[in-house]
Amino acid sequence: MNIKKFTLTLLTVGITMSPFTLQAKEHPNLILTKPGVERMRDNLGQVPLFDTTLSSVKQEVDAEIAMGIDTPIPKDFSGGYTHQRHKQNFFVAQKAGVLYQVLNDEKYAKYIRDMLFQYEAMYKDLPLHPQERSYSRGKLFWQCLNDSNWLVYMSQAYDAIYDYLSAEERETLETNLFRPFADFISLENPQFFNRVHNHSTWGIAAVGMIGLVMNDEELIQRALYGIEDDGLEVGGKDNDGGTIKVEGQRKGFFANLEEPFSPDGYYTEGPYYQRYAMYPFLIFALAMDNSRPDLKVLQHKDNVLLKGVNALLNLSDADGEFFPINDAQKGMSYYKSSLVSAVDLAYFYGDKNPQLLSVVEKQGEVLLQESGLQAAIDVRDGKAEPFIKQSVNLSDGVNGKQGGIGVLRQGDEDMTLVFKYAAQGLSHGHYDKLSFSMYEKGEEVLQDYGLARFVNIEQKGGGNYLKENKTWAKTTIAHNTLSINQKKHFNGDYDIASQHHSELFTFDAEREDIKVVSATEENAYPGTLMHRTMAMIANDNFEKPFVLDIMRVESDKKNQYDFPFYYFGQVLDMNFKYDTPTSLNPLGDDNGYQHLYVEGKGDAADHNTQFSWLSNGKYYTITSITNSEDEVFFTRIGANDPEFNLRRDPAIMLRRNDTQDTLFVSVVEPHGSYSRVSESSQNSKSSITDLSVVLDSEAYTGIKITDVKGTEQVFIISNEDASKNAKHSVKIDGEKYSWTGPYLYQ
Amino acid sequence: MNIKKFTLTLLTVGITMSPFTLQAKEHPNLILTKPGVERMRDNLGQVPLFDTTLSSVKQEVDAEIAMGIDTPIPKDFSGGYTHQRHKQNFFVAQKAGVLYQVLNDEKYAKYIRDMLFQYEAMYKDLPLHPQERSYSRGKLFWQCLNDSNWLVYMSQAYDAIYDYLSAEERETLETNLFRPFADFISLENPQFFNRVHNHSTWGIAAVGMIGLVMNDEELIQRALYGIEDDGLEVGGKDNDGGTIKVEGQRKGFFANLEEPFSPDGYYTEGPYYQRYAMYPFLIFALAMDNSRPDLKVLQHKDNVLLKGVNALLNLSDADGEFFPINDAQKGMSYYKSSLVSAVDLAYFYGDKNPQLLSVVEKQGEVLLQESGLQAAIDVRDGKAEPFIKQSVNLSDGVNGKQGGIGVLRQGDEDMTLVFKYAAQGLSHGHYDKLSFSMYEKGEEVLQDYGLARFVNIEQKGGGNYLKENKTWAKTTIAHNTLSINQKKHFNGDYDIASQHHSELFTFDAEREDIKVVSATEENAYPGTLMHRTMAMIANDNFEKPFVLDIMRVESDKKNQYDFPFYYFGQVLDMNFKYDTPTSLNPLGDDNGYQHLYVEGKGDAADHNTQFSWLSNGKYYTITSITNSEDEVFFTRIGANDPEFNLRRDPAIMLRRNDTQDTLFVSVVEPHGSYSRVSESSQNSKSSITDLSVVLDSEAYTGIKITDVKGTEQVFIISNEDASKNAKHSVKIDGEKYSWTGPYLYQ
Repeated sequence: MNIKKFTLTLLTVGITMSPFTLQAKEHPNLILTKPGVERMRDNLGQVPLFDTTLSSVKQEVDAEIAMGIDTPIPKDFSGGYTHQRHKQNFFVAQKAGVLYQVLNDEKYAKYIRDMLFQYEAMYKDLPLHPQERSYSRGKLFWQCLNDSNWLVYMSQAYDAIYDYLSAEERETLETNLFRPFADFISLENPQFFNRVHNHSTWGIAAVGMIGLVMNDEELIQRALYGIEDDGLEVGGKDNDGGTIKVEGQRKGFFANLEEPFSPDGYYTEGPYYQRYAMYPFLIFALAMDNSRPDLKVLQHKDNVLLKGVNALLNLSDADGEFFPINDAQKGMSYYKSSLVSAVDLAYFYGDKNPQLLSVVEKQGEVLLQESGLQAAIDVRDGKAEPFIKQSVNLSDGVNGKQGGIGVLRQGDEDMTLVFKYAAQGLSHGHYDKLSFSMYEKGEEVLQDYGLARFVNIEQKGGGNYLKENKTWAKTTIAHNTLSINQKKHFNGDYDIASQHHSELFTFDAEREDIKVVSATEENAYPGTLMHRTMAMIANDNFEKPFVLDIMRVESDKKNQYDFPFYYFGQVLDMNFKYDTPTSLNPLGDDNGYQHLYVEGKGDAADHNTQFSWLSNGKYYTITSITNSEDEVFFTRIGANDPEFNLRRDPAIMLRRNDTQDTLFVSVVEPHGSYSRVSESSQNSKSSITDLSVVLDSEAYTGIKITDVKGTEQVFIISNEDASKNAKHSVKIDGEKYSWTGPYLYQ
Repeated sequence: MNIKKFTLTLLTVGITMSPFTLQAKEHPNLILTKPGVERMRDNLGQVPLFDTTLSSVKQEVDAEIAMGIDTPIPKDFSGGYTHQRHKQNFFVAQKAGVLYQVLNDEKYAKYIRDMLFQYEAMYKDLPLHPQERSYSRGKLFWQCLNDSNWLVYMSQAYDAIYDYLSAEERETLETNLFRPFADFISLENPQFFNRVHNHSTWGIAAVGMIGLVMNDEELIQRALYGIEDDGLEVGGKDNDGGTIKVEGQRKGFFANLEEPFSPDGYYTEGPYYQRYAMYPFLIFALAMDNSRPDLKVLQHKDNVLLKGVNALLNLSDADGEFFPINDAQKGMSYYKSSLVSAVDLAYFYGDKNPQLLSVVEKQGEVLLQESGLQAAIDVRDGKAEPFIKQSVNLSDGVNGKQGGIGVLRQGDEDMTLVFKYAAQGLSHGHYDKLSFSMYEKGEEVLQDYGLARFVNIEQKGGGNYLKENKTWAKTTIAHNTLSINQKKHFNGDYDIASQHHSELFTFDAEREDIKVVSATEENAYPGTLMHRTMAMIANDNFEKPFVLDIMRVESDKKNQYDFPFYYFGQVLDMNFKYDTPTSLNPLGDDNGYQHLYVEGKGDAADHNTQFSWLSNGKYYTITSITNSEDEVFFTRIGANDPEFNLRRDPAIMLRRNDTQDTLFVSVVEPHGSYSRVSESSQNSKSSITDLSVVLDSEAYTGIKITDVKGTEQVFIISNEDASKNAKHSVKIDGEKYSWTGPYLYQ
């Protein structure tokens, strides 16, 4: 194919070409570019982080080449051999492509060619994958999602050896493998391809990227704008419970880029899936940028992709592990290779933020592309600055108007609170409005359970979502928030939940001594308004920052309220009486309650109920305002779990019966430490002697905290007026408090 | 007191003085010596490890001096303020003494003097400590043990400022504080002082050390040889259940040094208490060495003290944490300050083993004494060599004839097995003959529970032993060994248990591919002989070393056998059917069974029962030879634990009912890994396809392991003849096996 013929082809499909497009015929031109490759070659041996990455990739690929190529007949779920092998193949092929370009060693090109032709020989007659669980079964894998992964990586491998192959070889591969492959995951699976969902993002990137390599404009257009007439009816659910098509559904890359990302770069499914979706977003946007800079895909929606990287990094604890909001496997972190790519790209194509370089340093490897080279050079040249995570409020929703996630931090991530008041988050969303989790450095203090799944572990349900994900992990009672009448928020109805989101009341991280986030939710339980305010306070009379938690409830009827705290570690002490049963029984019958054993039950103390525990060598105390009719439950996850799919984690839960409007006020107070080596116990007791409601009206709620030194702190939130400029004045016990803005703290 | 008077005094009590004794009047002469102090001063600023230790000690002591001295009226258990304060006082005073000597700054001497005079003023009229739990209540603390700690450290502080004080000041302190203090913990508490027990060791060291500083020969003699007529009757128990006086009981330092230490340096209570007891042993022996080198205390019993340090280091996992044999709080490690002293002293006064220097490096601090200086100098000079822990067999008992502890290791502590076939271990002993625990690097694979106590955490029973220590931690079912008819070994009778020990059958760590330990126990259940053989095998067809476990039982009647494995982490997979109850009930009524919930119960598979789990990102499988009448229980600790004193840890347990002679054969097989970052699962399945008994007679037991590649390994143990030279020959399935020694492995 020469340039003339190429131009002609494009003209026949009616595309206006910019001059840049003509250059795109040079290969590689997808992720790697000729000038980028030249720069990498020129710098070999001079940039430590780049060299070590290259060397470790070379070692890995050489070992695979030595083992020989295997493309087994597809059979297994994730975790099984055929799944793992095909997955490994595309990873290694992509890497071999980079090595071929950078090291100019033909053995890598030959390896890719041989593998591609094995796939070509197999693909023509390949039936659907034998595992039938997915709503969109793939061919190499049990779901189109994984087939799409394959194509995203293989496109890069193909691009890298494009010029190494003969025109005839390319023709064979494109006709028998790539084009049918792309059509299969799009035209033949519109229910997979034509959504706004991380699945679709992978499908779109796959189709678009192979389209770019093949210069197949039809595929590129399909990727950018979706399939015009997909023939799908509105409704229908995927095997995770997500709706496949909604009224007025948009489609294609731009829709997937615009809709799930808020203007702040928060991805509505949560950071775990954002991490997964970022790679195809970024890599396809980069490919578009290299081929069609005129479309400014990488800069689309006010740089939302690059903002997304920053949002993602801020949604991690001090160890770089992502907060497990919605479906999320714990432990996923910015050390994941897709984050290595993301951070390098955000650095290079963004504003060269030197703080990103310290993340690059921690990651210890770079993307083998010009961006990774530049990051490694700048790390070498000492340009890195510490990546400081501040308190941050990230809006959710296409316009940033569907709630969000507030993260409060004190010190150098000494204490972090994650507050969720977001939208449902598509099919991976959990029913936990106004829930929170809390971290001390990289350790969980109060946990979000995450998902019920062992990703890629074949023995556990083929590595797929387990049924306990629905019966436990997604439920309301599985989270640190209010459950009413033992029901889930929105009664667990996905369609209804998807129509609503919580509302931010206020977020303020301007002051040193206090950071505040506050939000309301009135749809989770129709007829009931929940207003939760959480403040992280650093006070000289307290060893560590603590959290003040105010949950105010107005309801149109009397209810049963359950208010759990999922702690870790061992019970130390409490100020209330309780009984422990000899036999353990479940707390309830459904909505997650069936998974909780009651290990103890007591009557709350009159006025203040205190509970202390020890975890990871640190002490914690929750002090709650209670009345003597409140009940306290010691619960533990694990009932009705016949396959041992759930962790046996404990909680302490307050229950208030037969109450209409009410107020749950607690302080979660980290303090002290215990060393198993020195066996010395420091500051093992709470510094709080009294926690009181000093004011509660429709307009204001005021709390007083008295510490062991007798010092008092007062916090008053305006329940109705969140304006920053509104002036307030109240009298409590004869003393006048005046302030401006939504709250007072003194 | 002048030299003449001193000599005269000694003569009157009939002691023959060596010329060295006369020098002993110079101060400091206890742990520090004048020449040693000179060396430390001369090297200031030149030895990094010494300098950083000195600087951090100075910072700590300066901060304490700035806070002022507090000697509160004794009131609390350990963990409470008065306990912590007095404890902190003696630690800081000792350190201040060193600083005074090394830095020659009088503020440290003044600080000690002031503190001592506050104690002097208080002590005269001090009643017994108000807490009444101890069999030997102290005055400053709730037990004489802690009072003795105080005196061991304060003796050093006093010695350091001896010359700073006026003769009159010394007279006052000795008359009103030190001598009465020493008499109180010895003469007034013979039930504490006159035993063979770690308590007594502290008491003895305390009395001996203050005696050395005061040149009070009566105290020195009392320390070395005990109280002649203690007036105690035989029998009587302390508050931990230990016997206070046995028939023919020896006493004093030499008895305490000789009896609990085996010739290999193993201390019969186990490494946790050895760590605790080592400090007073060593520090007093060193003091004796400085004052009375003629008595060769430091070299007593063929250098058993220095051997003890080596034994202790070998009884730690790859992270330096001690194996929790008997009563032991997990996490205690060679980073403990008493081990810093011990390692430095063992290095300096031993044979300057350069491997100890790598432990010194890890510890990151040194003893502020000549030995620590020398270790720091030699570390600085690059003399450190890696401390390689090999497989080791440590005998128990005064003559090394009362069983022992076998530790099998493969690789660089890649896998470690700890096998206990020891004596009871005094009052801190557990009823777990032939039990084992297993480690992969520093992680527990199959655990020994350790103790039920939160040392120094006031909220948990004043930091003392909890009742669950007796009802759970000490029981047989709490350990990875055989429980018969739901009874404890020796029926849990301490006096009977103390008369017996298991017998080593063979220990062999000569081969690279297999390490073997084997022992018998015939007294734990009268009429029943248990013979357990454990082998750690490294085989090319297996990714990691695995453990072959053969427990052979001969009994005079039919029994119920319970055989648990206390694993960690999450259940993955099994090859047998089981039911899980909705309500959890205890497994039994007593002997520890009342603390186990039954989370599931199934029928073992016919022939091989397999169970896999995932822990710390690693996979493990136990394959056991079973018959279809065996039962399998999933248990979890935590029943009948009203104060939440126990950890909720799981076990898988085999039960064989109504059986006389029998054989439990299992392979514990670590394999593969799972990364939560890459989400890749490697080698998650067992490599074993068959585990069979190929021979079982009175003379031999033979096991065959077949792996997925079809390769067979055969292990045959001679059940009767452990001789290294005996020749054996057997025929199995027509094939002849011949070997020399107690076992065959091929």
